[in-house]
Amino acid sequence: MELKEIGEFGFINQIAARVFKYDTQDIRGIGDDCAVITEKSGLYQIVTTDMLIENTHFLLDKISAGDLGYKSLAVNLSDIAAMGGTPHSAFISLGIPQKISVEWLREFYEGMQELAAETGTLVLGGDTTRSSGNLVINIAVIGHVKSAEIKYRSTAKEGDYVCVTDFLGDSAGGLNLLLSNEQGAEELLRAHNRPRPHLKEGLWLAGYKSVHAMLDVSDGVDSDLKRIMEQSQVGAEINLESIPVSRNLIMTGLRLGWNITNLAIAGGEDYCLLCTVAAEEYTELNRAFRKEFGHDLYQIGVITKSNDLVYKKHDKIIVPDKKGYDHFKGSKQ
Amino acid sequence: MELKEIGEFGFINQIAARVFKYDTQDIRGIGDDCAVITEKSGLYQIVTTDMLIENTHFLLDKISAGDLGYKSLAVNLSDIAAMGGTPHSAFISLGIPQKISVEWLREFYEGMQELAAETGTLVLGGDTTRSSGNLVINIAVIGHVKSAEIKYRSTAKEGDYVCVTDFLGDSAGGLNLLLSNEQGAEELLRAHNRPRPHLKEGLWLAGYKSVHAMLDVSDGVDSDLKRIMEQSQVGAEINLESIPVSRNLIMTGLRLGWNITNLAIAGGEDYCLLCTVAAEEYTELNRAFRKEFGHDLYQIGVITKSNDLVYKKHDKIIVPDKKGYDHFKGSKQ
Repeated sequence: MELKEIGEFGFINQIAARVFKYDTQDIRGIGDDCAVITEKSGLYQIVTTDMLIENTHFLLDKISAGDLGYKSLAVNLSDIAAMGGTPHSAFISLGIPQKISVEWLREFYEGMQELAAETGTLVLGGDTTRSSGNLVINIAVIGHVKSAEIKYRSTAKEGDYVCVTDFLGDSAGGLNLLLSNEQGAEELLRAHNRPRPHLKEGLWLAGYKSVHAMLDVSDGVDSDLKRIMEQSQVGAEINLESIPVSRNLIMTGLRLGWNITNLAIAGGEDYCLLCTVAAEEYTELNRAFRKEFGHDLYQIGVITKSNDLVYKKHDKIIVPDKKGYDHFKGSKQ
Repeated sequence: MELKEIGEFGFINQIAARVFKYDTQDIRGIGDDCAVITEKSGLYQIVTTDMLIENTHFLLDKISAGDLGYKSLAVNLSDIAAMGGTPHSAFISLGIPQKISVEWLREFYEGMQELAAETGTLVLGGDTTRSSGNLVINIAVIGHVKSAEIKYRSTAKEGDYVCVTDFLGDSAGGLNLLLSNEQGAEELLRAHNRPRPHLKEGLWLAGYKSVHAMLDVSDGVDSDLKRIMEQSQVGAEINLESIPVSRNLIMTGLRLGWNITNLAIAGGEDYCLLCTVAAEEYTELNRAFRKEFGHDLYQIGVITKSNDLVYKKHDKIIVPDKKGYDHFKGSKQ
């Protein structure tokens, strides 16, 4: 059977989770943003790992070495943020093709160290090896989270509000600019090349019992919300008119004829957080969030009982033209 | 500057270690088999990560999926063994090209789980993504070690005996057989495709204060001993007639005209342990080792004051025909 027939999520669920199954309360393995392992005086340890491959996840002529170093660490720290955790240390493996120079590598490491310093992450080691093909980057990050505050994907409840911590689609807009060689707002390029992991937001949200489930938006709300739905055995309704998009995305998108809704819900690589919040607590939570972060915790929909993901626009059900991101089945737009 | 001009060790030392430098007693980063991080009631946590890339580290038509799964974990557990540690959990990232089937992946995971179960390692998560080129495997392993028993590369002392825990060169012999399509002892192929991490030996040796420095033999004694020399600021003398080689390697090697000494000191991928032992304690330690493991802790040389690695045969200095393994400068034979 070819892998594309079952897709990535099917693959992880069907094979890996079956082969590596553990019956213990101390451990939570495959299926969330991070694995959760060691209990330590009220702290759990969380571990995440991500692989980025040239020509699948990035194009070397479209991103600088420093930005790629920054972004490689950012996508991992985003997983730590999604658990409400604090990063501790990172371990970098590089598979390096001949074309990469020493200067490129130094810039790559310096870009990574910039974010590591900003976030208090210690880059402690790794592996460097030759690659005969593409540049390959793998990062594993270890972090900590207070055991009472850990947020999983499996804990969304019917009636919860679905919220996101930032505008959606800027990163996908930046990618569009890069791939089409068009001019557009610098902020879109920056959102794509130097995403900010929402560690502060994750830590803050983790402190509230009214926040039920959380993950980071890596493949787009459309794909990522389905992970929460699947693991929480719920459905969701998204109101397209509530999707928060930036002025930069609107201005550039209108000029270049982009489908902005598509970019916002299915573009991916937003690396903000998506969470579900007890509806009756939302107003108070949002007031505190706005005080802390200067903008709303944007409510974009609601968790439902059915297992479907339904999109509405002005209370009418519609089927948006969107394409989720599955590493095997589909391909990033 | 091209990377091959400075080589892998130069690269790690010059760039990574400079960018990621931390002044703290709780942490030991880049430069040993594992990073050592969290102190926890007399236990340290150790972390190691290794990347294996198709056509650099393995050829898909020369190793079965199950063996590759087994070996990918084994090379990481070997790093845990080298610190005298016990593995806890493993995190697998896979970059998967189109040609890989679901069946292949299941066998790969099952081979990995076989060694995981043998060694009590929990495979807890990871990342799967598409690769447009080669198959890429990255594994990160977290383990524990008693803080008093941890063995570094930097603690070899002048006069120490240099010892190894197993025969050398079998794996390189197996690789020779695979690449030349020759027939030979099954044990050589097995040594190459399913290396046994010396976790028991590592844990046992870690309990002895007379064992000063330790690492695993991944690139060949010739390359790996130089890492101890560099970090301990010492030299070494190796007696070629003391290098332990298996009957299988001798018989197959003689028949096929191999340079057996070359394979044994520079072939690499042995994944046994190399340690340095206080000379006056060696006899007693070896007696206990033999009782525990059924064979000698093979003494192959001695640590010297100078910074050179000298080979001797029957007390005469010689320059063996060997080639160390540097991922960038050279290439594996």
